[in-house]
Amino acid sequence: MRYINFLLFLFITSLLTLCTPRDIRVGSFIYVVERENSTLAVIDIENYQVVKRIPLEANLRHATIVFEPSLKYGYIATRNGKLNRINLETKEYDGYIETSKNSIGLAISQDGQTIAVSEYEPGGITIVSVKDFKIKQVIPAKIGNNKYSKVTGLVDGPENSFICALMDSNEIWILKRENPVDPESPYKITHKIKTADLYPFDGLITPDGRYYVNAHFKSNILSFIDLWNLKDRAEKIDFGKYSKKTPVKMPHMEAWANADEKIFIAANGEPLLHVINAKTLKYSHSIPIIGDGVYTVVHPFQKEIWITFSGESDGKIQIIDTRTEKTIKILDVGKKIYHLAFTPKGDRAFVSSNATNELIVIRTYDYKIIKRIPLNSPSGIFGVWRAYQIGL
Amino acid sequence: MRYINFLLFLFITSLLTLCTPRDIRVGSFIYVVERENSTLAVIDIENYQVVKRIPLEANLRHATIVFEPSLKYGYIATRNGKLNRINLETKEYDGYIETSKNSIGLAISQDGQTIAVSEYEPGGITIVSVKDFKIKQVIPAKIGNNKYSKVTGLVDGPENSFICALMDSNEIWILKRENPVDPESPYKITHKIKTADLYPFDGLITPDGRYYVNAHFKSNILSFIDLWNLKDRAEKIDFGKYSKKTPVKMPHMEAWANADEKIFIAANGEPLLHVINAKTLKYSHSIPIIGDGVYTVVHPFQKEIWITFSGESDGKIQIIDTRTEKTIKILDVGKKIYHLAFTPKGDRAFVSSNATNELIVIRTYDYKIIKRIPLNSPSGIFGVWRAYQIGL
Repeated sequence: MRYINFLLFLFITSLLTLCTPRDIRVGSFIYVVERENSTLAVIDIENYQVVKRIPLEANLRHATIVFEPSLKYGYIATRNGKLNRINLETKEYDGYIETSKNSIGLAISQDGQTIAVSEYEPGGITIVSVKDFKIKQVIPAKIGNNKYSKVTGLVDGPENSFICALMDSNEIWILKRENPVDPESPYKITHKIKTADLYPFDGLITPDGRYYVNAHFKSNILSFIDLWNLKDRAEKIDFGKYSKKTPVKMPHMEAWANADEKIFIAANGEPLLHVINAKTLKYSHSIPIIGDGVYTVVHPFQKEIWITFSGESDGKIQIIDTRTEKTIKILDVGKKIYHLAFTPKGDRAFVSSNATNELIVIRTYDYKIIKRIPLNSPSGIFGVWRAYQIGL
Repeated sequence: MRYINFLLFLFITSLLTLCTPRDIRVGSFIYVVERENSTLAVIDIENYQVVKRIPLEANLRHATIVFEPSLKYGYIATRNGKLNRINLETKEYDGYIETSKNSIGLAISQDGQTIAVSEYEPGGITIVSVKDFKIKQVIPAKIGNNKYSKVTGLVDGPENSFICALMDSNEIWILKRENPVDPESPYKITHKIKTADLYPFDGLITPDGRYYVNAHFKSNILSFIDLWNLKDRAEKIDFGKYSKKTPVKMPHMEAWANADEKIFIAANGEPLLHVINAKTLKYSHSIPIIGDGVYTVVHPFQKEIWITFSGESDGKIQIIDTRTEKTIKILDVGKKIYHLAFTPKGDRAFVSSNATNELIVIRTYDYKIIKRIPLNSPSGIFGVWRAYQIGL
């Protein structure tokens, strides 16, 4: 009888525990890459608690995350070629598939049904189905006899397309489904477009899905294509006329900012911010800034851009009015700023200060630091709202 | 012993059932108001199934929904003054609080911590805490001895402010927290600004959080204020010079479209679409359209606006290129189109066809109707991604 009572007790307590509605609050959490730990810190941005650290099968240098529009899963491309999946509801690790030896980026299709991963080794693109988390297709970036190119600058485009750059053949490739609206339909390469210079190494798509822009390694030239009016060759913006150094963009980290009709691009190794007209994609002018800019991130209201720096100005954030181009504020925060992200309605900014091992929360209203959250070597910061933006 | 076995069996099966991870997929569902039923249809937009009908304590004429950024709860303001709450994880009704006799709209603060409800009877604004779903404050719209105004055109603004229009005193009110960043801090009226004409009855805020614009009842004039540069009186756009009829906007339904530097406003009772410069808020020109426009909704890429109609062109959707202003397509769908909404990455549009009792799903890629979902008197269509946009 004692045994029965014990069983009953077990039964009832289990029922009570398990029946308690779980509090998922999928939108309350951001995911921050802890690079040296190979973990993903899950942070509740309502109370700033680190609720979990998800260990990944990963080398997390330049790791980026995409989120399904259903907000059920997030996917992380990693430098050891393993595409990791996390469950956004349980905040738990949910396995991996091996797509290559070395992946650099990923994108999720407009309909949320397909993930593409860009690979360095062997060069190519791997197409993964969201439905069953399985590889559907491997598209080698073949550029000659037994020669393959590294693939980078991967973004999602209109009509469930993907756009990427081939570093070793100086091309932009556009991939589309044979039947654009059928997630089961295989992807094929529909366009191969020569870039305007050698060794393209990153890319972005403008929020209207019209222009795709590449930076080139050790070059003063940007390539761009107009997706509404495709040509055989990319057009170029030659910064050499205006500036000695080359613009650099980090993979998938919004290192370039688009506010209204302006695209802001930091000149690497030179205290200048270049402004490009987003309608014509022509160089407009340059703005002097306090150091070598790394990230230029636009506030959701598009009124401000926030710039982080390498070199002597590292740790500072310069805030510039996108319309007047005047400096509003220079903040002094952290050391080795590896990423900066805003909440979607822009009330707060999150800053990864890698060398001081903290995530810094800044209130945008009065530019005050309201929280320092200890983390281990934080880098990329990812909020689930990215699921609802093209090119992220 | 048999009893023990039975208990064990119960225990294990319960554990198994309850431990099975629930599939929340909060981002996969849209909520469509079924006006005559007083229900909210929950539709899985991956497989187009109506998974549930949530009965509400409500009169759902002009019912609108806001979502917490945590994506835990959604809130519906109703014409019988009851603020209903739904749980987005369980997709279940989660109670109501009575805020007035008749509510017309609602908004959620930039930080997601406060909801404001605009009331017709008695006129005023009710402030509700998201944390405990309780009324924190009632702000009567007192405009004289025992005189109160109907409040409408309510939106969230920068710094956790709310902006609204007083129909009976021809004013715009701005409400801010005493301490803008403390959700516990009470709201106070910081500005009362005279509108440019009588009887303002709706409003919008531009996505950069800068301009607030009102329509006026039976008037050819729009009022607007510049939140960066507040004055005692609203400025005006007088359509009387260009057009006989008055522009109309339905509450909170994005009946005006903002694409890049243009705001598109349908002229009520006249086959014209007015274009306003979004930078200067000056009238630019008008575009002839096929009928009396009701909703003008911009595609997320801002390349197209989709226009619905009343009168003879009811049931049609005219699609116009926002840059060239040429007609791309005229679709013939349904009858009494009560709302139109896009997915956030723009692959599909959802259209409420009230008279034919269906939600129509249109693929934006080729403008094909891919699904007709039977519903009862559908009107407003709400996706959880609205949580991440100002003014929605």
